[in-house]
Amino acid sequence: MKIVLIRHGQSLWNLENRFTGWTDVDLSEAGLKEARQAGIILRENGYRFDVAFTSYLKRAIRTLWIALHELDMMWIPVHKTWMLNERHYGALQGLNKAETAEKFGEEQVHLWRRSTNVKPPALDKNDPRYEADNPKYKDVDIPLTENLLDTEQRVVKYWTDHIVPQIEAGQKIIISAHGNSIRALIKYLDDIPADGIANLNIPTGVPLVYELDSSVRPIRHYYLGKEGPLPDGTIPKTL
Amino acid sequence: MKIVLIRHGQSLWNLENRFTGWTDVDLSEAGLKEARQAGIILRENGYRFDVAFTSYLKRAIRTLWIALHELDMMWIPVHKTWMLNERHYGALQGLNKAETAEKFGEEQVHLWRRSTNVKPPALDKNDPRYEADNPKYKDVDIPLTENLLDTEQRVVKYWTDHIVPQIEAGQKIIISAHGNSIRALIKYLDDIPADGIANLNIPTGVPLVYELDSSVRPIRHYYLGKEGPLPDGTIPKTL
Repeated sequence: MKIVLIRHGQSLWNLENRFTGWTDVDLSEAGLKEARQAGIILRENGYRFDVAFTSYLKRAIRTLWIALHELDMMWIPVHKTWMLNERHYGALQGLNKAETAEKFGEEQVHLWRRSTNVKPPALDKNDPRYEADNPKYKDVDIPLTENLLDTEQRVVKYWTDHIVPQIEAGQKIIISAHGNSIRALIKYLDDIPADGIANLNIPTGVPLVYELDSSVRPIRHYYLGKEGPLPDGTIPKTL
Repeated sequence: MKIVLIRHGQSLWNLENRFTGWTDVDLSEAGLKEARQAGIILRENGYRFDVAFTSYLKRAIRTLWIALHELDMMWIPVHKTWMLNERHYGALQGLNKAETAEKFGEEQVHLWRRSTNVKPPALDKNDPRYEADNPKYKDVDIPLTENLLDTEQRVVKYWTDHIVPQIEAGQKIIISAHGNSIRALIKYLDDIPADGIANLNIPTGVPLVYELDSSVRPIRHYYLGKEGPLPDGTIPKTL
């Protein structure tokens, strides 16, 4: 059984080099193209899906929509959830990454970005970036910041409760999500230790295939490129 | 409680004057604009939605997607179903309406299009237009042709089983569907007799608001135009 993970195409804030987190920015022109290319690659490789999962954030939803358009599968059920959202980046959301590095130092920013247990500074509940009034989070205990382990906890809960049952029922699934929600899922699936995850980067808009055994444990994984799996794009089984 | 019905924007076959039915043609450039305009009008009038419903056909799905984009509500749940599909047009699907009128006579074509109980010629099960192998219809007893009463039966079943419970739970809903699936629903909601439905036309891409009482029966309805309800766009309560 194969599942496909895809990180959304380049967003406007990827382009502006800002911390994004739960900020709901859209795809850039390049990101729209990446999403289209991802759909075309999936189609050319004969992929079909029964069910799709994505986050509450439009850059992931739109990436999925564009891919489903290219696959001529706009009709399949799409389940959206905050639990597949990007890691919440706390008070860093909206800040420029280079400026933040100047202010707090490269090392601190690297820790915020790549460690598993360090949280960015928390948002204040009075901060306009805290979306308590957004109806989409009305049933959600919105985090004020998250480390990767926090993200992993919710992603894995959603995976276990909602995605695994579909896989076990024989449904072919695609998940359109975010750099860190995908890293968190891969950390869990491949049982990657905390010190092995720092250098795992997920490219935008490239379908990542996981082949799973009957216990829904990974057998192998690879990226889909135009000429098939990219030799340099494969995630090492253990990092 | 208000609900919004919207017929998809102009499709490529509306433009080519062909019978479409279940053929999965996309929106034309004008249809994309209509969908965008519909979303803008809804936004400017302060409409918010909790749940959306649409068919399995991309012209309705895309109209909804574009409207949700304009409303900044891409994240809401979207339920797709074949039961909101356009009326199945049988062996007329793909034929040019003018040529068909030349061949069979205006009167016959008018009967096929506007009567409630006359069915277009049925598709043959060997006809490539019969989509038995399309995975989207794998659990569906695909019709070979339908009259408006057939369409009404499935639309009303879906309305009763899936949409009414959401309305009763206080959810604000939008339905993106088709000329005849919307006519069928309106026929049911407003209890329009068979001889009153012939001249009911639903314009493409214009949000139609139904205000419902606590028993989910209609109180009044109107189209949303740029300047509010269009004086000439209102459907008479009984035709």
